[in-house]
Formats: sequence, structure tokens, C-alpha cells
Amino acid sequence: MSGRLYVIGTGPGNPRQTTPEALAAVADAHEFYGYGPYLDRLTLRSDQIRQASDNREELDRAKVALQRAAAGINVCVVSGGDPGVFAMAAAVCEAIDHGPAEWRTVDLIVVPGITAMLAVAARIGAPLGHDFCAISLSDNLKPWPLIESRLRAVAEAGFVIALYNPISKARPWQLGKAFEIVRDILPTDTPVIFGRAAGRPDERITVARLGDAEASQADMATCVIIGSAETRMIAREGRPDLVYTPRFIKEEAK
Amino acid sequence: MSGRLYVIGTGPGNPRQTTPEALAAVADAHEFYGYGPYLDRLTLRSDQIRQASDNREELDRAKVALQRAAAGINVCVVSGGDPGVFAMAAAVCEAIDHGPAEWRTVDLIVVPGITAMLAVAARIGAPLGHDFCAISLSDNLKPWPLIESRLRAVAEAGFVIALYNPISKARPWQLGKAFEIVRDILPTDTPVIFGRAAGRPDERITVARLGDAEASQADMATCVIIGSAETRMIAREGRPDLVYTPRFIKEEAK
Repeated sequence: MSGRLYVIGTGPGNPRQTTPEALAAVADAHEFYGYGPYLDRLTLRSDQIRQASDNREELDRAKVALQRAAAGINVCVVSGGDPGVFAMAAAVCEAIDHGPAEWRTVDLIVVPGITAMLAVAARIGAPLGHDFCAISLSDNLKPWPLIESRLRAVAEAGFVIALYNPISKARPWQLGKAFEIVRDILPTDTPVIFGRAAGRPDERITVARLGDAEASQADMATCVIIGSAETRMIAREGRPDLVYTPRFIKEEAK
Repeated sequence: MSGRLYVIGTGPGNPRQTTPEALAAVADAHEFYGYGPYLDRLTLRSDQIRQASDNREELDRAKVALQRAAAGINVCVVSGGDPGVFAMAAAVCEAIDHGPAEWRTVDLIVVPGITAMLAVAARIGAPLGHDFCAISLSDNLKPWPLIESRLRAVAEAGFVIALYNPISKARPWQLGKAFEIVRDILPTDTPVIFGRAAGRPDERITVARLGDAEASQADMATCVIIGSAETRMIAREGRPDLVYTPRFIKEEAK
């Protein structure tokens, strides 16, 4: 009989943003697979086994987890944020889709979590208060021209844009290019939010005008939110500025 | 001295998906403002005051909450799901933006939650595993032609589409029209997920082919997720089908 395969999201890293459902999954599992810094967020018992692997080995990790669950072990695959947003749930489904028939019999339980854009948005106001999209800027996973055409399409259509995986050592120029593309479409003073490590002790949330936004303001732990033409800033004396996107668009706005 | 104004999300309704951070906010507040069914999810003490109002009175509710917080009371504004996604955080920011100066001094704390599309996605696999967007179908808040043009833009650009507020008594035809629009762009067998009340006792998650999808499969408690051309289904004997969107797009795919 197969074990359970949990695929959980810890949230962005603040333990108070991890759900009881995710903690219950952790308590029920015996082997844990994930990127080391995400596994570090869990408090495991001495009978629980931790198998950290590199961030770029998602499909291999998914296969090992499925093998172990098919062998009868309760297994937990750990993502930061939400496991369904540019994370392990899709990798596990891909492995099932192309794997042996017995992997389809595994009891797969995906446990949602707070994804980075929601945590960042909460810290600054309500930039995702109107229609929005999430794009991974990693061109390891799709061709760069497709990313460019998607950025143009959603900026022109008035979506707020959350950028995941904005920059890394191996992908240093993509975010700057993304800013160039949307600068041709959106007003210069459109707010751009750099939300780093939201809710964690090393949190840093900054806002720039699109005209001044620089890729160097982001790192691997940053989720970047580019406003729409409707997105507004509220200056507050003695408190951080707020950024929000109104719920309403009037008939004449487009 | 002003009180704190919490704007929290309970998650979609399963208590195990409410974060400790949201519960701590509830414990610290004395007055609660929100749509009745969302307030019903909270367990309040006898010294805590509950002020339910209609779902359509978001801006008025935000103003009252700000008045009370400015008067020194710790107030909690309650959304279902995440407060930043088509919910109260934007209404509160709108009220601050256009309200008296003293509202800008209120200690505003937005607490993120699991938004419906994440909970629905988790129950079916990983449909949001690649680039995706969230659109509110409510044309109370924006002109219908703008919604149509946005649907076309994102379907053509290859985004998975999560539809919030898909249908109501006052808006009976919009979801059917949305299906018509994307049918002209996406393959007939694109998976469409109707995710009703994810994680609650009355949950109902169904999948249709886009060619067969009907608006009558949704109600007010449903989040509809329309796949992209890349989104796949996995048939599983004795278990529900999975739906996922692969993380990769090969060079030749577009």
C-alpha cells in the first residue's frame, strides 16, 4: 500500500504565516525532500529524515519522493511560499505524468501556502487589489522572447505584474530588460515594489518609480511587483508609504 | 493615540488554512467588520464586538473601521481568502487615500491569507504551475469591454486564468461570455476547473473541457481556473484526475 505524498508550502518564511494544515502534514510525514533553506524552516523529530537537494533539481527530487511514497513511506516535499506557484507541485505532477503507473496510485495531498506576492503586497498596502498576473522571469524554463511578449501583453492590458525569480547569478540581465519593456508602455511614475524576504527578520520592502527602478534593487529572495497605470501611492507622515491598486476602473479609463 | 487597524484574510474557510498571524490579529482586536459569512469563521470573546455588513458595502465598511481605529480602538477588518486579492485591503487604502489626514496615522497591518485560486489549485494538482493571472469578472467594478480585452490578451499570451467573482444573481451572463471569448483562442480540450468552497465541508471541485464548460457549473462561491494550451490532465484509476501546467515551455512551443 502506498504512503501519502504531501507537497506543502511553508509560506514566505515567517513561522506565523505557516498554516496548521502544513504543520499537520509535517507531523504525519517521515521523510522530507526540498531545498535546504526551506527544510530549515521545519522543526523535525529525531525519527524524521531530512533530504536536502539543490534548488535546480526539482524533477529529480519529485521522482525520489514518489518512489519513496509508492514504497509505503509518508513523504513530505517542501516548497517555500505556495507549492503550486512556480514550485514543487507542478514538478511532482510532471513526474507522475511521465512516470510508472504505480505513481498514479500514490495519495497526493497538496497543501497551499502564502505565496510571496501576497506577503509582499500585504506589507505595502494592496497593490494586487485589481487584476494581476504572476510571471516567472526564469528563462531556464521558457524562451526569453516568450517572456518579453507576455510582459508586453499584460502591461498593455492593464494588469499589475508580480515577477518571481527576478534575478540570479546565472540570470543577471533579465530583470533590467523587463523594466525596459514595460517602461515603453506604462507611466514613468508607476510604482515598482521590491519585496525582499517579506515577514522574515531580514525583510526589506522598497518602492521605486518605474523610471528609476534598477535591477540591482532585487536579489534571489525578492518578489518584484510592477503596478499598472491605476496603481497609486499614499504618502504618510511618520509611516511607510502605501501602494494600492483601486478596485474600480471607470468607463472612460480605457 | 490611534488604534491598530488589522485587515486580515481567513483563507477560503477551512480553519486549518487560517494562519497563526491572522489568529493573533483577531486576539488583539476589539471590533470586527466584515461580510457576515466571513465573520462567522471567527471565534470571538464576549468582549469583542461583531459588525456584519453586506458584501457590496466595502468602502463604507472601510471608512467606519478607519474612524474607529483613529479613535483609539483596535479594529479588525475581515476578508475571506487573502485581503489583498479583490478584497478589503484595497478598499481600506482607497478610504485612506481620499479620507481625512488623521486616517494616514492609523497603524495599518495587512495580514495575508490563502486566496481561493491557491486552495483550488492545491485540490486538483498544480494548474498554476506556470505563468498565470487573476481577473475579477465583476463588471460592477470595471467596464465589461475592458474585461473582454483582458481575457483575450492573457489567453493569447498563454497565461492560465483564474476568475474571481465569476457569477451572481446580478451578473448571470458574464462567465458564459468569458468562456465564449477564450474558446476562440484556446484548444477545445483545455481543462477548466470549477473550484467551489475549496477545503470546506461543502467543497466541490470539478473539471470540464473548455468546449463543454458551462457557466451553470459555477456559483458565487466558485473560483474558475481556465488552463492554457500547455495545461494537462492526468487520469488516475481510483483517484480524481490531476490537472497541472508544466513548468517548462520548449523553444518551439510558441
